[in-house]
Amino acid sequence: MRAIFEQELSAVGEGLLQMSRQVQTAVRDASTALAAADLQAAEQVIAADDAIDQLERELDDRCVDLLARQQPVATDLRIIVSGLRMSASIERMGDLARHVAQVTRLRYPELAIPEPARDLFAAMGEAADKAATDVVRLLETHDLELAAAVERDDDVLDHLHQQTFNLTLSPEWAGTTAQTVDVTLLARFYERFGDHAVAIARRISYLVTGDLEHLGDYNKA
Amino acid sequence: MRAIFEQELSAVGEGLLQMSRQVQTAVRDASTALAAADLQAAEQVIAADDAIDQLERELDDRCVDLLARQQPVATDLRIIVSGLRMSASIERMGDLARHVAQVTRLRYPELAIPEPARDLFAAMGEAADKAATDVVRLLETHDLELAAAVERDDDVLDHLHQQTFNLTLSPEWAGTTAQTVDVTLLARFYERFGDHAVAIARRISYLVTGDLEHLGDYNKA
Repeated sequence: MRAIFEQELSAVGEGLLQMSRQVQTAVRDASTALAAADLQAAEQVIAADDAIDQLERELDDRCVDLLARQQPVATDLRIIVSGLRMSASIERMGDLARHVAQVTRLRYPELAIPEPARDLFAAMGEAADKAATDVVRLLETHDLELAAAVERDDDVLDHLHQQTFNLTLSPEWAGTTAQTVDVTLLARFYERFGDHAVAIARRISYLVTGDLEHLGDYNKA
Repeated sequence: MRAIFEQELSAVGEGLLQMSRQVQTAVRDASTALAAADLQAAEQVIAADDAIDQLERELDDRCVDLLARQQPVATDLRIIVSGLRMSASIERMGDLARHVAQVTRLRYPELAIPEPARDLFAAMGEAADKAATDVVRLLETHDLELAAAVERDDDVLDHLHQQTFNLTLSPEWAGTTAQTVDVTLLARFYERFGDHAVAIARRISYLVTGDLEHLGDYNKA
């Protein structure tokens, strides 16, 4: 009985891991597509998001089914409730990667990002890629050090987000209104992507330590 | 035993209702503050968001505690899991109202919204107020008709969101870059506010009917 439950619990972990790997691919490809105005890559990211949404639904059904059949308590319960929480954050990260791809598609064959902002978005793409990669590793390892690092690293995305404002609001900014709108929204999408990575990192820290303090106000953004 | 459980279940509903009423106040006051560059009202919305976050944490603890002690199944389980979901959406709606207030504070004593966009934002404020009011009523009544109406009404916010793009991208747009950035982000905040109202409406439809189809892809936005 317990053995079967353990299997089902690890299936929840596997589901989260599978979702996070697809999000890692999505955000990497979305950033590449954005930088190169690569319509085909953008379309792939947009199409692939349905699979992530479907994984979330399956994972949630599995969690609710586990709650009903196994009546878990203590750590088991915490794992399942955290699974429900983390699947929502990972799904949302997939949506945000899709949004980046959708802007790319909208502006194709033009590059959505004007030259003066390209370095900033290259850095944001790297930071988001790192966050997604760390989330995958976090779900594999439940490493508290890594969880703390994800939270620290999010300052990079927040700082880059702020820099996009500094850029568009500087007297030197010569972008069109459409470019200002795109830069503003794209930077917001990356910044929110990082917030969700932090939410997952805090959820895992809570899972490992049982300390609610870890959950904090991760949605503040 | 069952009587106590019923009490605890209704306490979850009460907590959601309390959160939703505070969000209703927050979004109404945030829109008023935005329209009038009312710094004091904006500061109040920003300060009040902490209370909503605190309510969410308490509600989540209560739900997890209920899962552990009462080992609910079927409808009871659905109510508690939905409570966890809806508290997250309501908390997020509070964050978005706070974001509107924060832009208002950032631009004070100037009006953040330039004249040509004010009617649009007045309409968005009204639509968001209606969505928040309907969410409160939905949590009180679990009325399926109202849930369907919330979903339909969200088209209004989506349409207004689109109109803000049409406005800023029109040749007539004479706003500064800062105004373009503010209009873009504020419209996004209102649009997301509506998406979360739809998420809650679908969650309640699922709660009443048990039909997962109601959940849909409400996060698509």
